Amino acid sequence: MHNKVTKLFGIEYPIVQAGMVWNSGWKLASAASNAGILGLIGAGSMYPDVLRTHIQKCKEATTKPFGVNIPMLYPNIEELMQIIVEEGVKIVFTSAGNPKTWTSWLKERGIIVVHVVSSLKFALKAQEACVDAIVAEGFEAGGHNGRDETTTLTLIPMVRTKITIPLLAAGGIATGNGMMAAMALGADGVQIGSRFVASKESSAHADFKNAVLLAKEGDTQLTLKELAPVRLLKNKFYQDLQAVYKTSPTTEDLKNILGRARAKRGMFEGDLEEGELEIGQISGLIDEIASVSDIVDSIITEFKACQSRISTINLNNQNDQ
Amino acid sequence: MHNKVTKLFGIEYPIVQAGMVWNSGWKLASAASNAGILGLIGAGSMYPDVLRTHIQKCKEATTKPFGVNIPMLYPNIEELMQIIVEEGVKIVFTSAGNPKTWTSWLKERGIIVVHVVSSLKFALKAQEACVDAIVAEGFEAGGHNGRDETTTLTLIPMVRTKITIPLLAAGGIATGNGMMAAMALGADGVQIGSRFVASKESSAHADFKNAVLLAKEGDTQLTLKELAPVRLLKNKFYQDLQAVYKTSPTTEDLKNILGRARAKRGMFEGDLEEGELEIGQISGLIDEIASVSDIVDSIITEFKACQSRISTINLNNQNDQ
Repeated sequence: MHNKVTKLFGIEYPIVQAGMVWNSGWKLASAASNAGILGLIGAGSMYPDVLRTHIQKCKEATTKPFGVNIPMLYPNIEELMQIIVEEGVKIVFTSAGNPKTWTSWLKERGIIVVHVVSSLKFALKAQEACVDAIVAEGFEAGGHNGRDETTTLTLIPMVRTKITIPLLAAGGIATGNGMMAAMALGADGVQIGSRFVASKESSAHADFKNAVLLAKEGDTQLTLKELAPVRLLKNKFYQDLQAVYKTSPTTEDLKNILGRARAKRGMFEGDLEEGELEIGQISGLIDEIASVSDIVDSIITEFKACQSRISTINLNNQNDQ
Repeated sequence: MHNKVTKLFGIEYPIVQAGMVWNSGWKLASAASNAGILGLIGAGSMYPDVLRTHIQKCKEATTKPFGVNIPMLYPNIEELMQIIVEEGVKIVFTSAGNPKTWTSWLKERGIIVVHVVSSLKFALKAQEACVDAIVAEGFEAGGHNGRDETTTLTLIPMVRTKITIPLLAAGGIATGNGMMAAMALGADGVQIGSRFVASKESSAHADFKNAVLLAKEGDTQLTLKELAPVRLLKNKFYQDLQAVYKTSPTTEDLKNILGRARAKRGMFEGDLEEGELEIGQISGLIDEIASVSDIVDSIITEFKACQSRISTINLNNQNDQ
């Protein structure tokens, strides 16, 4: 297949495996790249030397293109960017910050830059900053999210009307049908997160993966809007947080309750009660842990079946016949 | 076109014009039915004798099928149901209540019953209550909404896996591309609200219609979750409400602030400051007031163009060639 996204990244299918904290190490990223999609290492949960090791292992495990996702809130971001360049990473996804800060620096070094946004306003800023592509992520997405709460179904067509560079849809997409829906709305490709959490190659703890399988419709919630909005499973930590909300906490109170390393504790160490379990609404549709290769095959097979099914819809009225 | 939805209602296109309070009188409903989709009168904002008049005028204005949407929280619902039967209405959409209460009573009288839900749990209850079809409405929809905040993109595939009766998607759909996305996800048809608010035939005040055209991405919000969650434009009333939220109000306080007739004041009387302006997120994509007939034509034309576009996507990899 040749479209804007496959050409930009040099990949087979217009699908990106999201670079998620505590889930997206070299095993997941290289498996994704080997399956014909773009694999991303999630640098947000890695110390600089850990990131370097993951990049090096990823290069050993695949000859295909892969990238790194870097949240720009990362404290020692300069160090990460230096490693990206030194290790010859060709694709960087930036998120959670101003796209102007690093885009030209990266592009001067021959690196493809994609920025993740949650609103039309930020999409326009990213295009102005001359990024190569945009990921527009809806309210239903897991993990950190925007304040406008715009859903993927409404965000994608609004961004599409104003953005000419390649556009990837994210949030709520886990299947071939979801991918087709995103492309019907005008996306050139998709970024998929939650479904790859439930992959054999994800570095998430087995207990967290099982929690994702058990999640049903209504089991996630966007919370902590006063700090940085995040969608997570409604586990004990979430319920405790709701109790605190009833006491009119300050943002400082909320920071104290959140504390440090809750995401690691939940997703990487498997503490389902006290940890932060970041996952999207579409987890309600995910019911097995499979290899990345099988997941990609299944998405492509379903996409093609969907394409056949919708091609038979005939909206011609009787007068046209 | 023949599919489950067009057959059930005896209409040309699998599209329903939502029965919205203060927007959906006989003019809108009959124009929709005459355009080949299902028109709905919104009974929620009508006194019983007003509803009777609207049904009678609708019957004079169209020979095609139309229906009535009845929120089951309506105080004198028995009176409305009696009018439905007396006036020979053939299709009723129920919402905001238990589908068991009226479904069998209506079906015994030969009336097709469709129930509107916002979650998989309520979809299963509606199917158990033997309704003829379900509207599953996502978080992005305007007006009253569910507590789970599940978006259309994630709700539809989850409902589809468990529901065998006809399924209409609602929330975030205003165009042919959006309709295609919903059908790719497994819906048999769509219910469209916001775009018909901005129609010539809607009974909304001209100033409210203009406010819908001006609305951009991020301009609506789901609020009043403690009473009944409702999505509305962030106007002065909404901002005042946010100020009150900072004072930790009781639900009684919120009821007092909301008061009575705010929806009428905003949508019907055009008080853009103090009124409640219910509209969906997709309002950010709506930029003209057109006749219902032109809106339907444009949706069908866009749907067909989308169908052509996505039929050319070729996901076969090079090994398959």
